[in-house]
Amino acid sequence: MDYLQLSQKYQTPLYVYDFDYIASRYNALKSAFNARKSLICYAVKANSNLSLLRHMATLGAGFDCVSIGEIKRALLAGAKPYQVIFSGVGKSDAEIKEALQNEILMINVEGESELDRVEMIAKMLVKKARISIRVNPDVDAKTHPYISTGLNKNKFGVDINTAKKMYLKAKNSNHLEPIGIHFHIGSQITEISSIIEAANIVSVLMRELKALEIDIKFFDVGGGIGIVYKDENEVNLYEYAQGILAALGGQDVTIVCEPGRYIVGNCGTLITSVLYEKFNKDKRFVVVDAAMNDLLRPSLYEAHHEIISLKDGEKSNCDIVGPICESGDFLAKDIKLPRLQNSDILVVKSAGAYGFSMSSNYNTRGRAAEVAIQNGTDRLIRRRESFEDIIALEKDYL
Amino acid sequence: MDYLQLSQKYQTPLYVYDFDYIASRYNALKSAFNARKSLICYAVKANSNLSLLRHMATLGAGFDCVSIGEIKRALLAGAKPYQVIFSGVGKSDAEIKEALQNEILMINVEGESELDRVEMIAKMLVKKARISIRVNPDVDAKTHPYISTGLNKNKFGVDINTAKKMYLKAKNSNHLEPIGIHFHIGSQITEISSIIEAANIVSVLMRELKALEIDIKFFDVGGGIGIVYKDENEVNLYEYAQGILAALGGQDVTIVCEPGRYIVGNCGTLITSVLYEKFNKDKRFVVVDAAMNDLLRPSLYEAHHEIISLKDGEKSNCDIVGPICESGDFLAKDIKLPRLQNSDILVVKSAGAYGFSMSSNYNTRGRAAEVAIQNGTDRLIRRRESFEDIIALEKDYL
Repeated sequence: MDYLQLSQKYQTPLYVYDFDYIASRYNALKSAFNARKSLICYAVKANSNLSLLRHMATLGAGFDCVSIGEIKRALLAGAKPYQVIFSGVGKSDAEIKEALQNEILMINVEGESELDRVEMIAKMLVKKARISIRVNPDVDAKTHPYISTGLNKNKFGVDINTAKKMYLKAKNSNHLEPIGIHFHIGSQITEISSIIEAANIVSVLMRELKALEIDIKFFDVGGGIGIVYKDENEVNLYEYAQGILAALGGQDVTIVCEPGRYIVGNCGTLITSVLYEKFNKDKRFVVVDAAMNDLLRPSLYEAHHEIISLKDGEKSNCDIVGPICESGDFLAKDIKLPRLQNSDILVVKSAGAYGFSMSSNYNTRGRAAEVAIQNGTDRLIRRRESFEDIIALEKDYL
Repeated sequence: MDYLQLSQKYQTPLYVYDFDYIASRYNALKSAFNARKSLICYAVKANSNLSLLRHMATLGAGFDCVSIGEIKRALLAGAKPYQVIFSGVGKSDAEIKEALQNEILMINVEGESELDRVEMIAKMLVKKARISIRVNPDVDAKTHPYISTGLNKNKFGVDINTAKKMYLKAKNSNHLEPIGIHFHIGSQITEISSIIEAANIVSVLMRELKALEIDIKFFDVGGGIGIVYKDENEVNLYEYAQGILAALGGQDVTIVCEPGRYIVGNCGTLITSVLYEKFNKDKRFVVVDAAMNDLLRPSLYEAHHEIISLKDGEKSNCDIVGPICESGDFLAKDIKLPRLQNSDILVVKSAGAYGFSMSSNYNTRGRAAEVAIQNGTDRLIRRRESFEDIIALEKDYL
């Protein structure tokens, strides 16, 4: 990929996504489950660009959405409603109503009060709401605490006994149709044994539900497959899929998988220009034009992103920092790069997931442009945000 | 303030700012320096809403800006160019150019390479750039590491020897006019002794510069005055001002002060509605409609915000969490509140600074509306972001 040319054509900071890589990741995961019925629902929150979603829809993917906004994005991009799942721990009444009106595949219910509200809203709409229930299997995903979700101390899902009670209630309701069972224990998981452990626990529950004549059709194993940012293990998809199939023990269900980062994480790079180098005593800083408002992960999760220079030279240690007035505004600390000067280009790797989607206008900085590369050609898929864009919702009130 | 009525009129999540409180804080700070020439430059990054900036301009404030976007906001809101300062560690050439063309008071230079670029751009424009230099006094502000900026290991400013060299260079340049000296050691500082210590160090440098016939007119002590979120000390403004005056030892300069959080932090509240209560075993969660995309501080800085319920009742421990699919999405942990249910209102205090300004569209959530209260009346100052607003910059490329 010619980063220099892209930086000149579109300016920086710039997000670039390799759509061919996305296709290869989707196809690899789909193939891993090819012995069985499966639905790969892309987790929109990782990267919700409309053109990227259209690309996923064209590949045949379904969509895992966590807000009505994400559902609207998916549908606008060409998703089939029966391939859209609505997850998330805090759905408003308006969101539930619109999801039901859109006839999506199912609503992933995260608690007893929510089940009551879904039933109430379905009744009001004279509908039967297809639901799954998110079970919290109390399994440690061994990842960053902020993205670990499968322990009882987390806000997500319900414990197994509560789930049983909810399924029985749903079975006996005229306005609820329990068709799925769901778990998701965290994000960026590189030891799949914890996912398999959770699958086994939830599979046992599913078998018990079938004995109660609750016919679960979708076994939703969530997402969370980790990727290589630095020196992590590459997850073996064959072992992952076989582990889940073994956990199912022959139960005839469609396996639903909700990858986000796995599909798009390493498809994306953030291209940034050097503004200055500076030294404070012995400490070397490279100030670049991308900042924490563009890529929050290093600051929020202490996440590692490889950064490469397009220029060669003798390397020395430095911090890569942005223009935002916080010490927390850094992209990398203590990495080795050659001496750099104004207009040199740096490439921040693995920025396809939770990069642009978490970006903000902090310090009144316009958000970056986004570009897709497909079959050797590049095209803009979101234009750079201007000052006029930033103030659009408030200038009329001045 | 009638939070219930506001929540019904404008929906939630909603930011509400008390403009009268802002005026009282501005006036208190201005008065503390009333024995001397002073310029209170509001730090726009804390809260950059255009109507709030206009309110500050009406009060007579100047503006401390860290991007050309913030400068444009200030000017649009009615700032006088000669009361606008451009600070920040990573200014692009385009930003420097536009700042010079706008004839602002001065550019706060943060490094040697930057001084060269400002000179080059001023020369190109056939102008003389008024500058100050940010000195890093190597003083520990004793605050969160992410918002501490006065140590040598931080990216900000230059050490004293480098500063001297830069002032001499500026003095001898046809395109630079050194008129200010600046330091800023961090944010949310509740022990002002560290600010006074820095003021003493920088005052000595200013005296040395005067001996070299470099006539500094503005002594810029930065911002960073802490506020009460929970049980912090309320900073004594009289002691603060007297400490700075004592440090100056009679040197005849205008004192510039750059408060952000001090002015707006406690003017603002974030009103949110309860969606559900849920229990995971013994752990109680209150799921609300505001999330980390609305208020990032608890997640990013482990910041404390008081949360009050409009409803009474026997209290028990709970976590207040948002709908975003991360365990890091919380507004408070282990606080005591009465039992709550759908549509109950909670009020998150001290949310006027670094609240809306850091908000994002993560999980395709539209950003909150903003409302101002002044003289007993409320008015919208930024409308709620819609789905159409969110996708506006990408839908044409689909």
